[in-house]
Amino acid sequence: MKHISILGSTGSIGTQTLEIVKQHPDEFKVVGLTANKNSELLLKQIKEFKPKAVAIMDKSKVDDLLNFSSCQVYSGIEGLNRIATLDEANAVVNALVGSVGIEPTYNAIKSKKNIALANKETLVAAGSVILDEAKKNNISLMPIDSEHSAIFQCLNGENIKEVSKITITCSGGPFKKYTMQQLENANVQDALKHPTWNMGNKITIDSATLMNKGFEVIETHWLYGIDYEKIKIVIHPQSIVHSLVEFVDKSVIAQLGLPDMKTPIQYALTYPKRFQNFSKSLDLAEIKKLEFSEPDFEMFPCLKYAYEAGTIGGTLPAAMNAANEIAVQAFLDNKIRFLDIARLVRKMMDEHKIIKNPSLNEILETDKKTKEETNKIIEEELSRMRVSEVNSLTID
Amino acid sequence: MKHISILGSTGSIGTQTLEIVKQHPDEFKVVGLTANKNSELLLKQIKEFKPKAVAIMDKSKVDDLLNFSSCQVYSGIEGLNRIATLDEANAVVNALVGSVGIEPTYNAIKSKKNIALANKETLVAAGSVILDEAKKNNISLMPIDSEHSAIFQCLNGENIKEVSKITITCSGGPFKKYTMQQLENANVQDALKHPTWNMGNKITIDSATLMNKGFEVIETHWLYGIDYEKIKIVIHPQSIVHSLVEFVDKSVIAQLGLPDMKTPIQYALTYPKRFQNFSKSLDLAEIKKLEFSEPDFEMFPCLKYAYEAGTIGGTLPAAMNAANEIAVQAFLDNKIRFLDIARLVRKMMDEHKIIKNPSLNEILETDKKTKEETNKIIEEELSRMRVSEVNSLTID
Repeated sequence: MKHISILGSTGSIGTQTLEIVKQHPDEFKVVGLTANKNSELLLKQIKEFKPKAVAIMDKSKVDDLLNFSSCQVYSGIEGLNRIATLDEANAVVNALVGSVGIEPTYNAIKSKKNIALANKETLVAAGSVILDEAKKNNISLMPIDSEHSAIFQCLNGENIKEVSKITITCSGGPFKKYTMQQLENANVQDALKHPTWNMGNKITIDSATLMNKGFEVIETHWLYGIDYEKIKIVIHPQSIVHSLVEFVDKSVIAQLGLPDMKTPIQYALTYPKRFQNFSKSLDLAEIKKLEFSEPDFEMFPCLKYAYEAGTIGGTLPAAMNAANEIAVQAFLDNKIRFLDIARLVRKMMDEHKIIKNPSLNEILETDKKTKEETNKIIEEELSRMRVSEVNSLTID
Repeated sequence: MKHISILGSTGSIGTQTLEIVKQHPDEFKVVGLTANKNSELLLKQIKEFKPKAVAIMDKSKVDDLLNFSSCQVYSGIEGLNRIATLDEANAVVNALVGSVGIEPTYNAIKSKKNIALANKETLVAAGSVILDEAKKNNISLMPIDSEHSAIFQCLNGENIKEVSKITITCSGGPFKKYTMQQLENANVQDALKHPTWNMGNKITIDSATLMNKGFEVIETHWLYGIDYEKIKIVIHPQSIVHSLVEFVDKSVIAQLGLPDMKTPIQYALTYPKRFQNFSKSLDLAEIKKLEFSEPDFEMFPCLKYAYEAGTIGGTLPAAMNAANEIAVQAFLDNKIRFLDIARLVRKMMDEHKIIKNPSLNEILETDKKTKEETNKIIEEELSRMRVSEVNSLTID
């Protein structure tokens, strides 16, 4: 039986993970849960799954949990780290959003927990450190993301040295057919309308800028040890083919399925076995057609920036990720415009002083400082904006 | 180094196999070759590849080879069996067309040669006997067919017990968009125009009736031990997705590639390794779209007959195959019309007295007798036709 801690249990991946646990009560037991500030849902989950311990990031919400639960309650980043390293857990699902996920992954690996990883920022910002540590502790890092789960499945029984190309599919996001003018005026509501996947806000905005796809390129590099020039992206609006691997003999293996995160989440937990599930079966004759096209690196420059950051390496991906995280939140808060996200990321990448072969601390420091600076720029621009009473802000 | 005998070396698969051998001189050596009657090409192949022995089916062509070659020359079905069991060979590529391929496969297995199988009739007519013998002798049966190679690759590293469905793709053949009226009048030239694959005449006609796809259903059943109700067909005109396997967790693995037989032929010879080759890389953005639809069992009844024959089993598939083989040849000879192929197959299946759990001899006897009877019917109808001076023949 697998004893699981779920970091970020009240989010989209977290709640779906709990549904899978519920469907296989003989296979999984939940021992730890964490939430950001949704103490109400966390409390429900405590009552249903009876974990040994929980943590809530927002320290002001601790009391909501203390009064009602019999399990241990922690808070803040120390709380997250506690749940990530619980003695009772042999596997940790990291479904946190943002760079806050880096440290708990690192600590879970050090405590020899196998990791099912949905937190993209862990590998984007700290890929080399995390991979080194995973190797040292001989633990497995199972991807939860549909694209990386697809690549993992395509590589089953194959020799990674015989891979000639990995193609990550991309729905194109809600702005696939927008003009540059329309992109300038795109608002939060539009950006949150993802055409095929129902996800959390942060990742949905990242999907609209295609930064999410850029992150996946970097994650693919780390997860499979593949050079960036062998990693390609193809736009595939139907989100049925989740990714493809080409081998030296020109044979291509792909993984397909309806857009349903339950399949990759479950696979990350059951591998090497596959369990029956209640997702819908793929019927290609019903789907009728699958379309493919080249991504537009000019309209969606974040994609280009991610290849650049990944290829250059060091602390540059951490800086890129930090700037993006703050910019996306500012966009969600209606403080900046859609295209300002990419502009802010570019600006912070240009200003960043890269540290080669960074330690975890140097990565976390880069993350913290870049976030502060990005926030400062947004606030400064905002004050200037308020003074000049301009309607919206554009960062050059 | 693999020492290979190629049965049917002058045909489409045979010549492509030799091209692969030529590209990898350190990996493969040809020790035996066979042809039906193309002594001219066989002679060229003897000079280039210097096999230990060859065989030609047409005994009248033996002299063409004796005068020019230093290698051993055999003829007829005995000759085929000699080449299939050569001491010097450790692998046999069976690229024969028709039920003539059954005996050599059987004998090669008994001589403990690993088999790369392109001859469909071996498994269609004699699946149970062949599989039993392969198991007994602990030899591997590698599929060369693009669809079965695809399925084999999708199953790499997977557990066959976790398969919930196998979907074989089908281009739909040249008559995909024909009406029943057009099918009645379809001629040989039309039927030989396959939209995506360049193959021999027999298999191209089988692709036009979809009997070829029916054969593949039966082969899939034997190769992977999968029940017929779990084997589906989907029409896919672009022939890029070569087949798909669905697992119990609703995850689908597919194998893709440009329509080029060299990839599956090479894989059958190099497995478990993959070698570089000179085929073109698949670029989905260039292909733009992949389409899928349900097959039409009414317009293409051979598909239905193959499911029926496979499910009932015994000698019924052998009878179906024999009738089809004669009918296709008669169509190629302009003796019968396109839809008469299916009518003849149906008639011979209806008249066949099924032997359950047949021996190899009973299968070969069924093949011989059904062919004789099918020929007799065609000849009788033809004489009747000539008498009444009707332009074409329809068998009810």
